[in-house]
Amino acid sequence: MDYIFAEGNGREITGKDKIFGVSQLAKKATAEYGAENVVNATIGALLDDDGNLIVLSSMVDVLKDMTPQELAEYAPIAGIPEYLDVLKTVVFGKYMPKGFIEACATPGGTGSIRNTIANYSRPGDLVLTSNWHWSPYQIIAREIGREVTTYEMFDESGNFNFGSFREKISEILKKQDRLVILFNAPAHNPTGYSPSSGTWDRIISILKECAAPGKKITFFLDIAYIDFAGDSDRAREFLPKFGDMPDNILVVVGFSASKGFTFYGLRTGAMLCITQNEEIAQEFKRVTAYSSRGSWSNCTRAGQAAIAKVFHDEKLLARVFEERKIYEKLLADRCRAFKEAAAEAGLATCPFNAGFFITIPCENDDAVNEELQKHNIFAIAIGGGIRIAISAISEEKCRMIPEKIAAAIKKVNG
Amino acid sequence: MDYIFAEGNGREITGKDKIFGVSQLAKKATAEYGAENVVNATIGALLDDDGNLIVLSSMVDVLKDMTPQELAEYAPIAGIPEYLDVLKTVVFGKYMPKGFIEACATPGGTGSIRNTIANYSRPGDLVLTSNWHWSPYQIIAREIGREVTTYEMFDESGNFNFGSFREKISEILKKQDRLVILFNAPAHNPTGYSPSSGTWDRIISILKECAAPGKKITFFLDIAYIDFAGDSDRAREFLPKFGDMPDNILVVVGFSASKGFTFYGLRTGAMLCITQNEEIAQEFKRVTAYSSRGSWSNCTRAGQAAIAKVFHDEKLLARVFEERKIYEKLLADRCRAFKEAAAEAGLATCPFNAGFFITIPCENDDAVNEELQKHNIFAIAIGGGIRIAISAISEEKCRMIPEKIAAAIKKVNG
Repeated sequence: MDYIFAEGNGREITGKDKIFGVSQLAKKATAEYGAENVVNATIGALLDDDGNLIVLSSMVDVLKDMTPQELAEYAPIAGIPEYLDVLKTVVFGKYMPKGFIEACATPGGTGSIRNTIANYSRPGDLVLTSNWHWSPYQIIAREIGREVTTYEMFDESGNFNFGSFREKISEILKKQDRLVILFNAPAHNPTGYSPSSGTWDRIISILKECAAPGKKITFFLDIAYIDFAGDSDRAREFLPKFGDMPDNILVVVGFSASKGFTFYGLRTGAMLCITQNEEIAQEFKRVTAYSSRGSWSNCTRAGQAAIAKVFHDEKLLARVFEERKIYEKLLADRCRAFKEAAAEAGLATCPFNAGFFITIPCENDDAVNEELQKHNIFAIAIGGGIRIAISAISEEKCRMIPEKIAAAIKKVNG
Repeated sequence: MDYIFAEGNGREITGKDKIFGVSQLAKKATAEYGAENVVNATIGALLDDDGNLIVLSSMVDVLKDMTPQELAEYAPIAGIPEYLDVLKTVVFGKYMPKGFIEACATPGGTGSIRNTIANYSRPGDLVLTSNWHWSPYQIIAREIGREVTTYEMFDESGNFNFGSFREKISEILKKQDRLVILFNAPAHNPTGYSPSSGTWDRIISILKECAAPGKKITFFLDIAYIDFAGDSDRAREFLPKFGDMPDNILVVVGFSASKGFTFYGLRTGAMLCITQNEEIAQEFKRVTAYSSRGSWSNCTRAGQAAIAKVFHDEKLLARVFEERKIYEKLLADRCRAFKEAAAEAGLATCPFNAGFFITIPCENDDAVNEELQKHNIFAIAIGGGIRIAISAISEEKCRMIPEKIAAAIKKVNG
């Protein structure tokens, strides 16, 4: 890759944006054929059945009530104290892990990923995630000179692939003494997969097995979709399992208010550590604040203040939860409709139970995606599969498209 | 510096925050002695004479009028189109440089500095700025493995030190083929200095002289304080001088809405390139969007939308400018009061004419600062000098403190 004036620094910057391209085609088709005749399953946000962004009115009311000063003032680098106060409850709910938990505000989930890689790996290191993953992981790692490598997420029976997970960790820890693992759950993007309690237990034992003396593992748990992973309370049940790790495994939880609080555009997020070692927790606080100062400085105050207010006011909080329940159900209905229709159509999917996305593994995904576009179905080809944003299409469309996807795959791949 | 679990990666992270410490002392003194008896000149924001944050009511009204969708939706990575549309006018006003200008939204000015260093230098490179500088420059550089080095900003007569500037650039360009220069003007932080038109001309000739074939210079112009650098129109007169650079000098302008629009906590900023080479401009657009995607993803939509609305509406814009005039005057009055009182007290300062800060060079700045605290004057010792935030104290206090500072310096240094 050639640069003219800029320094590549190991990054491959094509400037091509696949999602943007398909999304433009979907918009064009909608204008031509009408929204009811087009399936735009490209958008990673929760839309109502008419394609409008769903916004929690309770959260907006809180924003609208803010004083000019609350909107305008700088937040402290690590976040406003009222936000840091409630973050443990926001993230863990009734399921607080034991140990020392410290937090730092970040711009959305992205900032928490960036700060984790920056502080717990070295330039040149490999960072591990699953073969199915949110593609910006690679960009975030490369931007600071690291490289993402992957394990196979599922075995042939569609279960979590413990063997590949263990093997890859061991292999990397032979070459480097520290390893950051990016793990998106529950309601994984792009598959919609959530590990069961038993699966979590085995994942954690593998981490403990692999973290030999002299080796350090940072397990980054990306919970971006936890509030739309079915029941948001039950979705947190697994979290206390991370309250019992040896000192050479640091757990960092990446929180984003984008989905759960529909604060996409407010860039409100945080990173929280869980460790049994107080010094490691204090160091986490120091290094993450330094990284924030050196990357984006402080984070948007309004989003932090809004979440703090809601969690300091029982009535407001009840309103948020009530409102969210409606949309949890909307999404669950879409998910079930897709699952049933996929079964009827004999369409094989990655295992899924919740979240914004479903992935259909297939060969020649670009060609399959183009074939779908002929039927006014717009999705994202993610390399080895097609990602469908059920967050963005109606239950009716969720019921309708599996058959068409099965047909498109058959047409392309025979 | 020892780390327990984190990787230092060349950074020295003490966790000590000098400004925070002094600011706490100032708050304590205010509680004990009353605000009228305490000078808290530590805060880098524009406060009224009673110490309250000044917020442009026009900008808040625009925020309050936004629809839920406008507040909640993601912005595109590089910024919303309406914001990118007006940015050239926001930044350059009537003084548009010739050439290709492209832009990318960033979280405040910090994001634009980070993305400039990340894309136009390599890990291990030196980045150049003046000896008097905003201390986070060093943190931003180190966070991605670069190191800041400095030239002497003023000569013995208090003029811009062209010799030191030229010498340092040449010296670094002997060791590396590219160089990022961070240049904060007008109303430089922390000195309040603005180069004259003639000084700009000489600075630009030095850049041209030093940019030998095979060498590239990226001149980052940090205009964080341009809207409080005296008359905000005249403060832009120098900008067209950057419309005539050879292809191996790239000018990047870092814009922040924090001060000029009192959007401190909304993290709204941008970076704009000026180049005579269209390909370099297109590359700028690509690489800065990639860096954003890999660091904080998109930027807060509300701040971008508010600025776009104001600049798309003549009446609203007139209201913002009218309101700002009042505060420009407030700040100019404080500046003049300090200057007169400093002359009377025989207090030597760095040259200044506008902005939020004034710097008094002195030896043993920590001891001088502590001496001032005994008189309930709180400022920041910045290594070789004391920084006074006239943005945060009344005209009366600006008139009162130079004598006390002169006395404190005399007491400490004899």
